[in-house]
Amino acid sequence: MSFQLIEYADASPEVRAVYDDIMATRRIDWVNNFWKALANHPQTLKRTWESLKQVMGPGQLDPLVKELIYVAVSVTNNCNYCIGSHGAAARKAGMDDAMLGELMAVVAMANETNRLAIGYQVPLDDVFKGAVMEHSGG
Amino acid sequence: MSFQLIEYADASPEVRAVYDDIMATRRIDWVNNFWKALANHPQTLKRTWESLKQVMGPGQLDPLVKELIYVAVSVTNNCNYCIGSHGAAARKAGMDDAMLGELMAVVAMANETNRLAIGYQVPLDDVFKGAVMEHSGG
Amino acid sequence: MSFQLIEYADASPEVRAVYDDIMATRRIDWVNNFWKALANHPQTLKRTWESLKQVMGPGQLDPLVKELIYVAVSVTNNCNYCIGSHGAAARKAGMDDAMLGELMAVVAMANETNRLAIGYQVPLDDVFKGAVMEHSGG
Amino acid sequence: MSFQLIEYADASPEVRAVYDDIMATRRIDWVNNFWKALANHPQTLKRTWESLKQVMGPGQLDPLVKELIYVAVSVTNNCNYCIGSHGAAARKAGMDDAMLGELMAVVAMANETNRLAIGYQVPLDDVFKGAVMEHSGG
Amino acid sequence: MSFQLIEYADASPEVRAVYDDIMATRRIDWVNNFWKALANHPQTLKRTWESLKQVMGPGQLDPLVKELIYVAVSVTNNCNYCIGSHGAAARKAGMDDAMLGELMAVVAMANETNRLAIGYQVPLDDVFKGAVMEHSGG
Amino acid sequence: MSFQLIEYADASPEVRAVYDDIMATRRIDWVNNFWKALANHPQTLKRTWESLKQVMGPGQLDPLVKELIYVAVSVTNNCNYCIGSHGAAARKAGMDDAMLGELMAVVAMANETNRLAIGYQVPLDDVFKGAVMEHSGG
Repeated sequence: MSFQLIEYADASPEVRAVYDDIMATRRIDWVNNFWKALANHPQTLKRTWESLKQVMGPGQLDPLVKELIYVAVSVTNNCNYCIGSHGAAARKAGMDDAMLGELMAVVAMANETNRLAIGYQVPLDDVFKGAVMEHSGG
Repeated sequence: MSFQLIEYADASPEVRAVYDDIMATRRIDWVNNFWKALANHPQTLKRTWESLKQVMGPGQLDPLVKELIYVAVSVTNNCNYCIGSHGAAARKAGMDDAMLGELMAVVAMANETNRLAIGYQVPLDDVFKGAVMEHSGG
Repeated sequence: MSFQLIEYADASPEVRAVYDDIMATRRIDWVNNFWKALANHPQTLKRTWESLKQVMGPGQLDPLVKELIYVAVSVTNNCNYCIGSHGAAARKAGMDDAMLGELMAVVAMANETNRLAIGYQVPLDDVFKGAVMEHSGG
Repeated sequence: MSFQLIEYADASPEVRAVYDDIMATRRIDWVNNFWKALANHPQTLKRTWESLKQVMGPGQLDPLVKELIYVAVSVTNNCNYCIGSHGAAARKAGMDDAMLGELMAVVAMANETNRLAIGYQVPLDDVFKGAVMEHSGG
Repeated sequence: MSFQLIEYADASPEVRAVYDDIMATRRIDWVNNFWKALANHPQTLKRTWESLKQVMGPGQLDPLVKELIYVAVSVTNNCNYCIGSHGAAARKAGMDDAMLGELMAVVAMANETNRLAIGYQVPLDDVFKGAVMEHSGG
Repeated sequence: MSFQLIEYADASPEVRAVYDDIMATRRIDWVNNFWKALANHPQTLKRTWESLKQVMGPGQLDPLVKELIYVAVSVTNNCNYCIGSHGAAARKAGMDDAMLGELMAVVAMANETNRLAIGYQVPLDDVFKGAVMEHSGG
């Protein structure tokens, strides 16, 4: 009764349609385990893929930058699978060893200063208010 | 006996030296509250500033990209001060509204798929191994 | 240049269409601040609303149960806005004071035992393997 | 000098008493590794078991609902042991594949919108205030 | 129908009994808001107080050390109330400004190196295995 | 192109200088994997080691206390490598089984009450204000 990784050969037509779109969009001929796991709940598979395709698709931020941000969040959340899969995507998008080193340094530094700001309960400078939202009640 | 924000006028010479370097490096004439709080422990003030100056300084990643990564981690960790201060730094480095919108979308999406990968306990595809570290025992 | 809460009167047609669907789906005549903030990035507004409508819509789990789960995650992540908004949704869906008290107790207990299992590095019992995924590589 | 999983045969009378109560309460003839690890600190074993027995015992929330909440927190905290053990408990309490799929979808969605609310620093709507606590200073 | 802070004058006999024990144990004549909030669910109030009294009571670790650990976790979890209440308890137990400065530095450093170890997916050295648990499958 | 653990024999002079200082400072003749991973980005290796040496060096807090705090944060963040390495360091600094048991109990309890304070949105008592920072805007 448990979930299994669902291979293309065993997939329903609606799951296969998502797999096909993943492969066509990424110009590859295989699907990674993440999607094979989500395929146990086809609604989640389809929605997550369509959301990811939109979010990681063309926009103002460079594809490499988006992957670096993805890795940064995944390291902070300790998601080993995501570090591996998005680390690979970042490599493919052009991340070299120097960039990877700097990425890790920034992520670690941010985690450090986040806790200093929280621990010291530092009040936000007036000049920083509104950098994200005007009149936020934060 | 508690900590207070330490203003330049009340600071010791070693704290003033750090404040001076912050202002010179950033070409501004004021110091934000984060540093005024750390000044209660001068060793932490000096070390943290020197680390941040190195990590956020010139390298392979663009200054704007580093600030976007900083905001991404701060949002994931829920550090309101850091979202405000690094959000402002990202604005200064060129983040426009479209970039901010995409940044938030990527951060949120990564937090979502991190939990799907964790919850489904997805095994890492062999092809992704070594994207970050060779032979990692992760 | 910063983001603001976007009111219906100031919204573009595509944003209004989402607001209209939110109000129609929830049978209310107002839109809460979360959506007014997302409206700064219409693509995120539309995608997030459609995803939420699907995820929280009719299924195998009772609407109240889904809201309790939402509050549980929001407490664990320390999202004050989300505790407030989904706490209200849970109240509307039938959560009484006794249920709220039990919800908080379970969430807190889970956070406690999570750290005991992590800290003691407890190996998973064979009998528990496959409860979520078969052959997971954890 | 390190900790080991403490088997019934090697356990002290006070540890055995807790093991006996676990088996009697759950109507099973074995004890899972979590308790065998805690048994290294008998005071923690006894207190944690008695707390868990109370929190997960009969009340206003259905046993299945409590297990779903437990899994939701464990996924958010990335506790692999707890996902396994409480996933198994949820299965035993009646969670079918459709429920598991919806549970994961809700947990992931909550983690996503938590970060959107935090990142956009959305101010809480007046109407949501007091949903959990009256006059909270949150 | 929402929760309120429950004052002694409005409390039931079972809640008063816990309040009395808190005041007697701590040798003070007032109860802090945390307990007045938990009093909305008397079972949780009683269980949490009795657990805390045991965990923070006399043992091998000094009371000040226990409070420092409590603050360290609270900063990492971003619990503003807990930083305030356990910061005050640490002050009462003897934490001076130099100790507070060092505590924050250690907490921040640990948060930084945690992410470096996670990001680089560093495999555990054989010599460190068994430091906590023998034969752990971690 | 990926990162590898960099052994002394393969290290550059600047990396060897850090390795030498680690071994001299700790009076051991080997370097653990954490540093061999960071050596892929020599700047991060040097900065992180120098920071750690300062933070964990002589001060007002006992070396054992600093290691206990390090483990507490690592358990809360679920960093398996760090629990192993700092657990070993704590053992070396004098942590016995009773202390380890109490440490885990305090960490787990703090994680529990952190969520109760967050979930109930408990307002901070006036008397606790200023325990860490005076006039904090928290």
